[in-house]
Amino acid sequence: MKTTILIHCPDQQGIISAVTGFVHAKGGNIVYLDQHVDQQANVFFMRLESNFDADLFSESDFEKEFQKNLAARYTMQWSMHRAGRLPKMALFVSKYNHCLYDLLSRYSSGELEVDIPFVVSNHADLRPIAEQFKIPFYHIPVTKANKGDAENEQLKLLASHDVDFIVLARYMQIVSAKIIDHYPNKIINIHHSFLPAFAGAKPYHAAFKRGVKIIGATSHYVTENLDEGPIIEQDVTTVTHAHRIADFITKGRDLEKIVLARAVKLHVQRKTMVYDNKTVIFY
Amino acid sequence: MKTTILIHCPDQQGIISAVTGFVHAKGGNIVYLDQHVDQQANVFFMRLESNFDADLFSESDFEKEFQKNLAARYTMQWSMHRAGRLPKMALFVSKYNHCLYDLLSRYSSGELEVDIPFVVSNHADLRPIAEQFKIPFYHIPVTKANKGDAENEQLKLLASHDVDFIVLARYMQIVSAKIIDHYPNKIINIHHSFLPAFAGAKPYHAAFKRGVKIIGATSHYVTENLDEGPIIEQDVTTVTHAHRIADFITKGRDLEKIVLARAVKLHVQRKTMVYDNKTVIFY
Amino acid sequence: MKTTILIHCPDQQGIISAVTGFVHAKGGNIVYLDQHVDQQANVFFMRLESNFDADLFSESDFEKEFQKNLAARYTMQWSMHRAGRLPKMALFVSKYNHCLYDLLSRYSSGELEVDIPFVVSNHADLRPIAEQFKIPFYHIPVTKANKGDAENEQLKLLASHDVDFIVLARYMQIVSAKIIDHYPNKIINIHHSFLPAFAGAKPYHAAFKRGVKIIGATSHYVTENLDEGPIIEQDVTTVTHAHRIADFITKGRDLEKIVLARAVKLHVQRKTMVYDNKTVIFY
Amino acid sequence: MKTTILIHCPDQQGIISAVTGFVHAKGGNIVYLDQHVDQQANVFFMRLESNFDADLFSESDFEKEFQKNLAARYTMQWSMHRAGRLPKMALFVSKYNHCLYDLLSRYSSGELEVDIPFVVSNHADLRPIAEQFKIPFYHIPVTKANKGDAENEQLKLLASHDVDFIVLARYMQIVSAKIIDHYPNKIINIHHSFLPAFAGAKPYHAAFKRGVKIIGATSHYVTENLDEGPIIEQDVTTVTHAHRIADFITKGRDLEKIVLARAVKLHVQRKTMVYDNKTVIFY
Repeated sequence: MKTTILIHCPDQQGIISAVTGFVHAKGGNIVYLDQHVDQQANVFFMRLESNFDADLFSESDFEKEFQKNLAARYTMQWSMHRAGRLPKMALFVSKYNHCLYDLLSRYSSGELEVDIPFVVSNHADLRPIAEQFKIPFYHIPVTKANKGDAENEQLKLLASHDVDFIVLARYMQIVSAKIIDHYPNKIINIHHSFLPAFAGAKPYHAAFKRGVKIIGATSHYVTENLDEGPIIEQDVTTVTHAHRIADFITKGRDLEKIVLARAVKLHVQRKTMVYDNKTVIFY
Repeated sequence: MKTTILIHCPDQQGIISAVTGFVHAKGGNIVYLDQHVDQQANVFFMRLESNFDADLFSESDFEKEFQKNLAARYTMQWSMHRAGRLPKMALFVSKYNHCLYDLLSRYSSGELEVDIPFVVSNHADLRPIAEQFKIPFYHIPVTKANKGDAENEQLKLLASHDVDFIVLARYMQIVSAKIIDHYPNKIINIHHSFLPAFAGAKPYHAAFKRGVKIIGATSHYVTENLDEGPIIEQDVTTVTHAHRIADFITKGRDLEKIVLARAVKLHVQRKTMVYDNKTVIFY
Repeated sequence: MKTTILIHCPDQQGIISAVTGFVHAKGGNIVYLDQHVDQQANVFFMRLESNFDADLFSESDFEKEFQKNLAARYTMQWSMHRAGRLPKMALFVSKYNHCLYDLLSRYSSGELEVDIPFVVSNHADLRPIAEQFKIPFYHIPVTKANKGDAENEQLKLLASHDVDFIVLARYMQIVSAKIIDHYPNKIINIHHSFLPAFAGAKPYHAAFKRGVKIIGATSHYVTENLDEGPIIEQDVTTVTHAHRIADFITKGRDLEKIVLARAVKLHVQRKTMVYDNKTVIFY
Repeated sequence: MKTTILIHCPDQQGIISAVTGFVHAKGGNIVYLDQHVDQQANVFFMRLESNFDADLFSESDFEKEFQKNLAARYTMQWSMHRAGRLPKMALFVSKYNHCLYDLLSRYSSGELEVDIPFVVSNHADLRPIAEQFKIPFYHIPVTKANKGDAENEQLKLLASHDVDFIVLARYMQIVSAKIIDHYPNKIINIHHSFLPAFAGAKPYHAAFKRGVKIIGATSHYVTENLDEGPIIEQDVTTVTHAHRIADFITKGRDLEKIVLARAVKLHVQRKTMVYDNKTVIFY
């Protein structure tokens, strides 16, 4: 039985030895260990993949003892995840289809280890794509007037499908605290610029105006500060004076797809940890 | 005899045909032509490398006729450059030595087709490097109090050596309008971020704090608005949570060297044109 | 009316002037001109986008005069393409679905300016994907024994749909001269390595064994020499010792999709010219 | 006192726990741990940076106990390195100066934590550069006839300066087994192609002829099979049809400098381990 343990705590001597010794004593075989110390913040991070003999292993006993013997002693924040159960990922979209096509294609190929209970959108345009991939599609229009109600409806949908995390696949609405608070570090957005450059609306237009020679895309966890959440993944591509805004948009699309897909995979594989509005990513 | 002609003017029908026909009629063999139309601004740009038989070619006649027959008719801004005479490049530095080492090494190898009449600095630290490469070094301290005088002294130095363009190779002072006005689009700076992200002081610290996954460097022409001049060249490299600020600085150094060197070469080869605070770069 | 003219011929003085003068005289407005001289082979290449007033322009007159006045005189190989008619692109696939998903998604979004009359495969596996995107799917099994017959069947299919060019989207069969001869420089393949490294079968396995730190993908026109045709586009991504072959394959998939899509677009936009088993690409 | 321990051994359960427990028991504070399992070869690799209290720590006792209690039990190959003593790096060059300039500049800046006892060359051309940086220069001509004698002379020089590792900074001679055997996995070469493409002589010419769209550079440990040793670092840059061989060479120079410098740093920081003609690199 494969498990992944994520830990962070104040940095102290002997943590690695204590944790690996504990896992070993419980019959675990450590397959992969990654560790990081943020020396400014004095915080220790660890990710540990271990295999246990399913017949001999009691998850609840392990958790209880880990909590008592290690977590309490080292003031750890920690979580353990058994392989097997697929996380449930909700997709929020508006009218752009490239990220939706890309994620649904990866899902259909079996490349993304998730369940997708539904796609929700403030527009009806992308319904045929969801249907083409046999994913339920909900159209919840959002206006200034109905925003509160719309978000309540979204929350109900999320809760009723027991959603684990949300992907904003070019969802052109600001998600308010009401939803963010229910899904802290569990909403992944793709922004079509190399953040922090060109935050906000129309980043390709701004990049064109500034005459940059490189454009980018950024995937980040959503926080209440627009485009300022912890960055998960970024990538860039070159442009020249010969590219018009339309070319920026076309080139950028491929970036957005790749960067968002990478971020989703890192999240699903529990390779991301958030601390101090930054991410530790164990590639 | 090799010449390079640079032109920009309002876009009109028939310009390419008119210019290439003229060069052909004057006995020129067009080796390389690059052209661009900025369709938003409706401006036409052209760069033309041609060979003429030195015995039959009169530069001043060519210039007069070109001006009368073409430039006036199409409202061109244009310039012609004969190969042969090396442009004179002044180097401004402070205490960081990596860009200085890099440019002087390239110069000594014959890779940079320039003359370097001197290195000037507000600190004495890098004198040994200039001397090691046998380049005169001037130490002109700059303080808040003496800034005006110091810039006058710099201007005198620039004038007396008949300098064509200036490279700020990690020069940690703001260059004021007094100097910029004498060298419009002729002062090249290297900024150690992916502009417009992290303009101003301490960009690596700011990038670290933001938790970006990619850092960059930007070379641009200096204008009166700090770090907002026309971008010539940019490049980036990846970073992770495991990199400390010191690592950003070390990784960034290699970027800065490469990006600055590329920008200098593009400038020297007259492959850059500036319009509307942006560059057209004919690679 | 927008046209694209492609020319190559022995390099001679005055070609640009002659061609641009001719287009201008015929009322054409040159929107974009790119030109290249292969100085080793002494060959001149040009790509010319021009707009003509549709009411005043006779394509057949233009072609006749161009041929007589220019092509004959300069020994040109040339072609003219009117915008408007979509080229017909046949897709050959086997069992891998990522390039198929990617190209059909781009096609459905309107990003690819082509018609796709059919997908053909030596296996039935990908039929549901073609159907999902409402593209006819033909299953033509290929074995050692029936290869000649299968290719005849493919040729019939291609002819009956008036196909302009073929994309091998991870088609795991060698295409023989019988088909290549009908579609010279019109069959685009994606090879999952950075050619010429790791030509032939199982390139990711070979790359893993060699311990490279970067893997790549290459799109090229198919010639009779396997994986040796003119390269259109290449891209790479980094790998480390921590990546297993399965990771190479997953990372490589994204490369393959992007590189193949770029090559297809360049071909469709007539930005590629082939000479001496190499490509001139007018980006 | 900072130490780095490198270990590899057959993969077994409990190694991490045993090693970290041992270090902890000896009063060590583990600053950084990286670990890798090659699952095909079933080999475990670990790199461990620890701090010990210099007053309480006996290196020889630690080594004896580690050997007895851990290394013997797990059949480890291991080594421990105290920070402080600078490794001695010999530079072999021929006529190309860019890598020499780059490494000596980094050395002079204090960026490279090495001593450079000498530069040796089969040509006298680069003597002024070595002298400019105040590094002793030895000219040992190499011909077919005298190769054996020349290598003996080189070996004497290396021995007399107690050299730890050798960098071939564009040394255009094949180094024979006589030298390689004395410095196994301690000779770093820079090859000017993306290996395994274009091994051997004149890779830029070969790349040009093949019409690749990307060129590269590769740094590797030297083995008896030319250009086939374990790869440490690779990087690439794009080229187009417009680049001539001379442009490949110029663009490639920057790649060679960067890739070689990175490989040297990784080696010096003991972040490289060699197994099965591949490297594990703990970035």
